[in-house]
Amino acid sequence: MTEKIPVGILGATGMVGQKYISLLENHPWFEVSYVAASPESAGKKYSDAVVGRWHMQKDIPTGVEKLVVGNANHTDSALGNCAFVFSALELKDKKELMTLEEAYAKCGLPVVSNASAHRWTDDVPMIIPEINADHLDIIPQQKGARGYEKGFIVVKPNCSIQSYLTPVYALIKAGYDVSRLFVTTMQASSGAGHPGVPSLDLIDNVIPYISGEEEKTEREPLKIIGRIENGRFVNHKGLEISAHCNRVPVYDGHTACVSLYFKIDDPSLEAIIDIWNNFRSVPQELELPSAPKRPIIYRTENDRPQPRKDKDSENGMAVVVGRLRKDPVFDIKFVGLSHNTIRGAAGGGILNAELLKAKGYLD
Amino acid sequence: MTEKIPVGILGATGMVGQKYISLLENHPWFEVSYVAASPESAGKKYSDAVVGRWHMQKDIPTGVEKLVVGNANHTDSALGNCAFVFSALELKDKKELMTLEEAYAKCGLPVVSNASAHRWTDDVPMIIPEINADHLDIIPQQKGARGYEKGFIVVKPNCSIQSYLTPVYALIKAGYDVSRLFVTTMQASSGAGHPGVPSLDLIDNVIPYISGEEEKTEREPLKIIGRIENGRFVNHKGLEISAHCNRVPVYDGHTACVSLYFKIDDPSLEAIIDIWNNFRSVPQELELPSAPKRPIIYRTENDRPQPRKDKDSENGMAVVVGRLRKDPVFDIKFVGLSHNTIRGAAGGGILNAELLKAKGYLD
Amino acid sequence: MTEKIPVGILGATGMVGQKYISLLENHPWFEVSYVAASPESAGKKYSDAVVGRWHMQKDIPTGVEKLVVGNANHTDSALGNCAFVFSALELKDKKELMTLEEAYAKCGLPVVSNASAHRWTDDVPMIIPEINADHLDIIPQQKGARGYEKGFIVVKPNCSIQSYLTPVYALIKAGYDVSRLFVTTMQASSGAGHPGVPSLDLIDNVIPYISGEEEKTEREPLKIIGRIENGRFVNHKGLEISAHCNRVPVYDGHTACVSLYFKIDDPSLEAIIDIWNNFRSVPQELELPSAPKRPIIYRTENDRPQPRKDKDSENGMAVVVGRLRKDPVFDIKFVGLSHNTIRGAAGGGILNAELLKAKGYLD
Amino acid sequence: MTEKIPVGILGATGMVGQKYISLLENHPWFEVSYVAASPESAGKKYSDAVVGRWHMQKDIPTGVEKLVVGNANHTDSALGNCAFVFSALELKDKKELMTLEEAYAKCGLPVVSNASAHRWTDDVPMIIPEINADHLDIIPQQKGARGYEKGFIVVKPNCSIQSYLTPVYALIKAGYDVSRLFVTTMQASSGAGHPGVPSLDLIDNVIPYISGEEEKTEREPLKIIGRIENGRFVNHKGLEISAHCNRVPVYDGHTACVSLYFKIDDPSLEAIIDIWNNFRSVPQELELPSAPKRPIIYRTENDRPQPRKDKDSENGMAVVVGRLRKDPVFDIKFVGLSHNTIRGAAGGGILNAELLKAKGYLD
Repeated sequence: MTEKIPVGILGATGMVGQKYISLLENHPWFEVSYVAASPESAGKKYSDAVVGRWHMQKDIPTGVEKLVVGNANHTDSALGNCAFVFSALELKDKKELMTLEEAYAKCGLPVVSNASAHRWTDDVPMIIPEINADHLDIIPQQKGARGYEKGFIVVKPNCSIQSYLTPVYALIKAGYDVSRLFVTTMQASSGAGHPGVPSLDLIDNVIPYISGEEEKTEREPLKIIGRIENGRFVNHKGLEISAHCNRVPVYDGHTACVSLYFKIDDPSLEAIIDIWNNFRSVPQELELPSAPKRPIIYRTENDRPQPRKDKDSENGMAVVVGRLRKDPVFDIKFVGLSHNTIRGAAGGGILNAELLKAKGYLD
Repeated sequence: MTEKIPVGILGATGMVGQKYISLLENHPWFEVSYVAASPESAGKKYSDAVVGRWHMQKDIPTGVEKLVVGNANHTDSALGNCAFVFSALELKDKKELMTLEEAYAKCGLPVVSNASAHRWTDDVPMIIPEINADHLDIIPQQKGARGYEKGFIVVKPNCSIQSYLTPVYALIKAGYDVSRLFVTTMQASSGAGHPGVPSLDLIDNVIPYISGEEEKTEREPLKIIGRIENGRFVNHKGLEISAHCNRVPVYDGHTACVSLYFKIDDPSLEAIIDIWNNFRSVPQELELPSAPKRPIIYRTENDRPQPRKDKDSENGMAVVVGRLRKDPVFDIKFVGLSHNTIRGAAGGGILNAELLKAKGYLD
Repeated sequence: MTEKIPVGILGATGMVGQKYISLLENHPWFEVSYVAASPESAGKKYSDAVVGRWHMQKDIPTGVEKLVVGNANHTDSALGNCAFVFSALELKDKKELMTLEEAYAKCGLPVVSNASAHRWTDDVPMIIPEINADHLDIIPQQKGARGYEKGFIVVKPNCSIQSYLTPVYALIKAGYDVSRLFVTTMQASSGAGHPGVPSLDLIDNVIPYISGEEEKTEREPLKIIGRIENGRFVNHKGLEISAHCNRVPVYDGHTACVSLYFKIDDPSLEAIIDIWNNFRSVPQELELPSAPKRPIIYRTENDRPQPRKDKDSENGMAVVVGRLRKDPVFDIKFVGLSHNTIRGAAGGGILNAELLKAKGYLD
Repeated sequence: MTEKIPVGILGATGMVGQKYISLLENHPWFEVSYVAASPESAGKKYSDAVVGRWHMQKDIPTGVEKLVVGNANHTDSALGNCAFVFSALELKDKKELMTLEEAYAKCGLPVVSNASAHRWTDDVPMIIPEINADHLDIIPQQKGARGYEKGFIVVKPNCSIQSYLTPVYALIKAGYDVSRLFVTTMQASSGAGHPGVPSLDLIDNVIPYISGEEEKTEREPLKIIGRIENGRFVNHKGLEISAHCNRVPVYDGHTACVSLYFKIDDPSLEAIIDIWNNFRSVPQELELPSAPKRPIIYRTENDRPQPRKDKDSENGMAVVVGRLRKDPVFDIKFVGLSHNTIRGAAGGGILNAELLKAKGYLD
């Protein structure tokens, strides 16, 4: 690959957009060539548009600093300036957001979205590359039915499920089907973006509620581990999920306490650890640039994973698990952790795009 | 009651001991007349013994400041100086701790203990006054079998179960027996005492492990809601509990996410809230000085209870619940919260002593 | 005093307004009889107006819950409903705010303001009752010149200076004039109100900047310890102040590191501690209900004052100092602390009103 | 350089020792070949010796994991196993620590120390390579007088002064001599090591005291910018420093609020920023591997530097400054920040060793 693929970032001035820009600096395949945001920011130099609200720890990459921000509502501005777009749009109106992403697809730009609007659209795949890379198979169908020539829409799921779904899926794939799952999340502040959660609400405190989060946590896994049937996604059957979602005073890194009940077989703890440590999937086989070498890392210390110590494992792309033990009510319990703004947001989106590229969908 | 009952504090220089001293200032029935600690502190003025390590927000009560610290290993020093003792002893050796508390009981001093050593002793009641005040009925039996004349031992359970057990018990008592319970706790730093958890482990972090805590959380409720049979405690049958215990960056206040599965009937959410709001028990009937008027408070806001906002409800003696909703796997789920160093430690011990007094056990 | 004085709260739905309402519950002299806020809240029951944004730890007082919120822009709604108003208005336009407070005064209602708009108005006293109670003498002048019949305006200074100015003033009053003062503040999040500082900016972080705060910290003391001359306030001369203001991850309580250079005499450390411990002033002499018995508390521990341990001293109305020592560059240095939302905001406003009442200005 | 220089770490199991090991992974010049600690750890595999107390975010480097820990009290164990040692010893007895470091030097091993014991030894240089690389000239003198053949001792200063001393020195070097300096530090928890500061003392709190820290902050700069005279260090004259040192709830990164008074000339703010941005010194000229390209980075945002956003600048080796402005009492004020466990501890030690190597002292 001699030349990098030019990519656009929609919602480039928000926290997720900034994370995309930050993570894509020096990406071997992609190069940010276009940024778009709300009409207020449009026309400004990117560095001016985010003055006083650039929240990344690294400075704005030089290449992006000078880009002129486009109006995200105008797909025309993107056309010709990039080969596909990452959508980090934050429109409150779900319908508008759906329509806007569709407009980009229609005009010929593949949309790799971080937004929740299209997660439950029948012909839109919701991808965690280690789990359901094959869901991309629906793309031709999607394009055909919608009359898209080159564009299409692919989404990623909510950050709250990334900390536990891959380990659970690894067990299912290994033949240990799961029928019931309890999860309590302790989610980082960065999941709410900036300004997000006021410091007065999070200093010396826990907030046992995140709007819409429990519903997403309980539903999204069913589509992700579901299958395509007659050109539509059909949910996985027979898995019940119950979620308690909490916000804790942590900057980055979602922690999940999980209990599982298996349908039939109850694997030994050793077997499970083995399955996790040896789990490799499509991104690893394809050696995607952002793919963690070990997608699941089992820590043997009795007090891990912890957000600060484990969130950056494999550049924030691994799921770190630990404390696997027998559950007195179900079969097993464990703790999972992932970096919510890398694996759970921009990094996950980039991995999706890399998968699309490797599979030829971006050609 | 014209004269206050003189009480002793064993382990008076530790965090729990300090909390006892702080809470007993101006108590209508009890007055701290004796303090004891390890041999290193013995002989010092109390204010000297805790210099540089008094961790309460209020200053040392004047009455206690000048007390000379006794050697907690010598029951003789306590005799004559107090009518009963609160044990906040922190000996690491469980056996030694048991023996020492027994020595106090044997020499004639009732022991109201915060320590875990005797929680599973067959003839020692583990009391939450709102739940099992009648477990005190074993005291005559305990005294008889052990040859104690005036002394006896009563304990309180672990702080981690206070945030949810009373609400669960209220449902059981109302006829809705529970067969399965999932709980994930997010526990405050003060539960580990001082120095306790290093700040480096808790700044911007969650520790998904507290030594021994999950075992206590899963077992202790069974004795508390159990019954006396042939002079011994017999565990409640048919309730399975699974616990995930976490330490979060909160100073005071344990939060618990709870899911319940009922044996037969599945009460409506309205019925449950009604049961909770109307729950009153022995401490309320006896109008014990430290008894919360409302032992269970249901908050209707969608993001409550929260440690900082709710831990001090009813002077830290109430259990605050909220977010009651249907559970997709079990029947219902909710969030519970209690003040771990008041209701969950010293305050709970004081309520136990008040119950003993009201029932005539301290006469 | 058989009947309480009815008071109004302007800006009643904001954080400072809420604090006023919270602190005035059970006040011996005043009773909240009227609340006003922006047009959006006007007409609603108070408890409805603050639903989801009541940030106090105690619930809304029953008496206030049912008050109908008035439109703060209409002075008419206040008239007849209260004898004077506390202004906790948060208008961004300083000019508008000045005009509105003047309108209240003009229509006959004394205004005790927390806002900064009128702090530098020539004939408006900026009061810390322990320091410059005599500045109220300007009120007749103010009323005369402005043609106010019953109303007038009194303000309190910024929260950042409360942690050190009274101790400094006590030294000046004792004859040790100060010519140079360095102060570095570490200010609590609550000083910025709600939503205020995003948690992402304050978790595991310090923000070395608070807009406008250093200017206020360097200027306001000069008026407070200044004097009235020809019906106008004249700044104290000969005191130079330099301030560094920082935001730290603390909920309540501003800490200040102070270095002082004396004009002539350099008192001994013992003399200073003596001056502080014995300092009493007008609020103590008048036994105002909210006056701290000890307005300045010197802690002898080597690591105090600390926000969590000391902010609530004397119900949050004391200034707590400690670590007095020689300064290698100036003469002395010490640490000061005050509760920014009590002494530094609503509590300070209430003390001002009590002073006004005691001095006959509210008759 | 074809082969790496084998180095030993004394105090290898402590926090600073761990940071050395972590930072030296993949170092181009040095390779950890020997680790030593207290007798309790001696004889164990390194990974066993730190089980349950490895506090770095990266795992133990594979090369070090299997090293057998030597007894730090036995210099013999180090001899032959490394060419020089980093001392991160934490003996409480200063005298013992001095003697032990001397024993290493005497037996032929250069000692690059992080400990404070020898900072004020007359013939031991205390080095910040950007400031006083020429102080190494004393080494021959030190060796001669002490009869060391190959060994010698070099130390680095306290972490609290790194956040401001290089910027101040840059001004002095540019001809703007400073006569008075006020500094208030807000220091991170990691500066106290592990377990260090209890979380109960730092959640929602500030501790305005760090034992011995103000004294070090006020004294050490005088030696560092001093000069060698007759084979001994003579302090810089005419600079008075006053320090207030505080501990704040931050994991890594010391922030300093600094006010300066110049001896004669008062440079313009633009001139100062220019001096800082263009400052380069010996480590940059020698292109030492750990040298920051920009040793001083001036941020133009009005709320920077901040610990979380700026501590990792130039891999944690830069000093980041901001908020330069006029000071009403002195001449100028600004905020400085450095990474206390990298630039302020292990990273600073490694840079010292690189300087020694480049200057031929390790040959």
